Amino acid sequence: MIVKPAQSSNIKNILEKLNTFNSDPENGTTRVLFTEPEVEARKYIKEEMKKNGLVVREDSIGNIFATLEGTDPDLPPVWTGSHIDTVLKAGMFDGMAGVVAGIEAARLIKESKIPHKRNIEVIVYTSEEPTRFGLSCLGSRAMAGYLSLEQAKRLKDKQGNSLAEVLEGLGYDLSKFDEISFKKGEVFAAVELHIEQGAVLESMGLPIGIVDTISGPTKLEVSVYGKQSHAGGTPMNLRHDAFLACSEIALKVEKLAKKSSSKDTVATVGLVNVIPNASNVISGEVHFSLDIRDSDYEVKHKLIEELKDFTKQLEKSRGVTIKIRQINDDLPTKSDDRIIEIFENSCKEKNISYHKMVSGAFHDSMMVGKFAPIAMIFVPSKDGISHNPAEWTDYDDIAKGTDILADGLLKLSND
Amino acid sequence: MIVKPAQSSNIKNILEKLNTFNSDPENGTTRVLFTEPEVEARKYIKEEMKKNGLVVREDSIGNIFATLEGTDPDLPPVWTGSHIDTVLKAGMFDGMAGVVAGIEAARLIKESKIPHKRNIEVIVYTSEEPTRFGLSCLGSRAMAGYLSLEQAKRLKDKQGNSLAEVLEGLGYDLSKFDEISFKKGEVFAAVELHIEQGAVLESMGLPIGIVDTISGPTKLEVSVYGKQSHAGGTPMNLRHDAFLACSEIALKVEKLAKKSSSKDTVATVGLVNVIPNASNVISGEVHFSLDIRDSDYEVKHKLIEELKDFTKQLEKSRGVTIKIRQINDDLPTKSDDRIIEIFENSCKEKNISYHKMVSGAFHDSMMVGKFAPIAMIFVPSKDGISHNPAEWTDYDDIAKGTDILADGLLKLSND
Repeated sequence: MIVKPAQSSNIKNILEKLNTFNSDPENGTTRVLFTEPEVEARKYIKEEMKKNGLVVREDSIGNIFATLEGTDPDLPPVWTGSHIDTVLKAGMFDGMAGVVAGIEAARLIKESKIPHKRNIEVIVYTSEEPTRFGLSCLGSRAMAGYLSLEQAKRLKDKQGNSLAEVLEGLGYDLSKFDEISFKKGEVFAAVELHIEQGAVLESMGLPIGIVDTISGPTKLEVSVYGKQSHAGGTPMNLRHDAFLACSEIALKVEKLAKKSSSKDTVATVGLVNVIPNASNVISGEVHFSLDIRDSDYEVKHKLIEELKDFTKQLEKSRGVTIKIRQINDDLPTKSDDRIIEIFENSCKEKNISYHKMVSGAFHDSMMVGKFAPIAMIFVPSKDGISHNPAEWTDYDDIAKGTDILADGLLKLSND
Repeated sequence: MIVKPAQSSNIKNILEKLNTFNSDPENGTTRVLFTEPEVEARKYIKEEMKKNGLVVREDSIGNIFATLEGTDPDLPPVWTGSHIDTVLKAGMFDGMAGVVAGIEAARLIKESKIPHKRNIEVIVYTSEEPTRFGLSCLGSRAMAGYLSLEQAKRLKDKQGNSLAEVLEGLGYDLSKFDEISFKKGEVFAAVELHIEQGAVLESMGLPIGIVDTISGPTKLEVSVYGKQSHAGGTPMNLRHDAFLACSEIALKVEKLAKKSSSKDTVATVGLVNVIPNASNVISGEVHFSLDIRDSDYEVKHKLIEELKDFTKQLEKSRGVTIKIRQINDDLPTKSDDRIIEIFENSCKEKNISYHKMVSGAFHDSMMVGKFAPIAMIFVPSKDGISHNPAEWTDYDDIAKGTDILADGLLKLSND
């Protein structure tokens, strides 16, 4: 196929312009769902889509669809897209890179004048980040049928406004909320370019990752109840130190993840609240998060069982009580073999080295995967940093990813 | 000697009345230096002292002295006392038990009509707790010459008021601030009854502890700098998890304290701040406290050196940077052998079992020990709990301690 290479200057210009819609420019990028900068960013990106000859529409939850019509528009379309909302004090690539790559890929396909059968649609999924309503992937979740209008009325932001109220206030037609969802077969394929948010590609010196699995996260909340007592007055042998039990669990989890039979197991204790958290008091309670992800659901649950056995021993050895609450538990999402093959062939044709890999982070593609064949293209994150103002991906790497994306969209569209 | 036994009903009455001066009665006891309840509690306790025939005076920092005059009042006096201020949401015994025991002991001695040479003085030390001005033992510190008027002008509470301003506002005469301090030899002996704030006596089933050493605390602030990254996107082998390094240090400290050659070594990680503290982010920084106490200064510092060697290994094995800052470093305070002997003899005469022990917590006696021979009597804390609304000591145990105290004061006064 003779699609011209993506222009990294185009990608840079749109990403930089998008980054001007920012409610906290002193601290990287902050663009929270349906705040003024996010609404303005939506307007801008829709204009940019139209400028590139795409036909734009929006559904009742604000998912944006920009269509490049094919020769047989009645066939199930091929999608590509990502999100433009951010966490607080974030970077300018997470999500946005995929949307901009989609627009650039659509431009390249259009300008190549190569016929394509299926419609190609560039999508902006509403609020992948849970920043405003505490729930991630609002748009793609509704597409997958996992977010009803009833739930949208119950979901509240910190000001007490419900998602439904906010949508209505912005003029979205809630009477069509049921029409957001898709059935299996209605979308032929959905692909997403995203920054890696890890350092695997960088450490291997490769520009492209092809995601064969999105890990299924399991989130646990662990509470350790020990005995609060005086740091001076309590001999070592009379202590029931909740924080030390937490420390043992954190290190055990690391050990289990490292020796896991799956190479994709990752486990993290990222949030730790010590009570009372005073230098001269032995902690009486510690509440902490445990985030475990794997491409293999069975392996993940074997790890959790081993961990539970360990905490039972720990309860005895330290005289503490440990409660484990499961917050969520997702199955991994497998990429479609056919799409992976297409991406691999594109890389080979263009002589670009790539790495087949797992996405530890979840993405809209996980939700979309519930009703459509999916796959993802990763581009490297400098130092593996993301959700941080220092987040960076070279525009040339996004352009390389866009080349693979454009090629893949064209092949899929004619598949 | 024929001093009548202490009345636990007296002790109960005064402690319960004292507990009515409380700015947060819903949550145990809160009585912060020179707040209205604390000022009212001072008035009440001075009245109680006068009712028991003691002559009351106050120095320029609010230390209260209640004198039972001896037959030779020019001799250096014998002191007993503690404090009546509290931390936030505290109990009703820490400090107060010692003041009330002192008043009851003075009453018993007075009523026994047994002649005593030296003056016996019951003292309320100003603000043993650091609650208001962030510095502990204000009164006894000034007595020891470690708190000048200049410092009192610099010490500020959260409202920005200096200790000097607050004292002046209450009518204390700052021109006499220099007269607060004592020289060695000016006080013959100073003894303090206090709740144990630990569970040693309870676990041994003993009513009385005789403190032979107050451990010297060393406070360290440890900072671990790792690499903040995405919990999903970062494989286990590419992590530099600051919290896991903190966990290893906390467990190592516990191990070192447990295998210490001194049986009194205690070490605690009580305050832990994880940054950014989010469930899906590997921590980039952790700042935590390390509180190490020992009756043996050399042993304590050997432990700290071993710990530093360990953190150097950890920097390499985890690819993190660890900074250790020493906040304070105190020598242990040894009790006076003569006073201990007197207390031991009193216990034997009264057939009360006792335990010679170390105080891990520090007390005004640590400061007073810089200019006078000191010793302390401990009474049991239920479940070892202190600095907590659940703090409890049986009134009968305080009465037993008061018997030993009264006996000791009388003997020392005639020594």
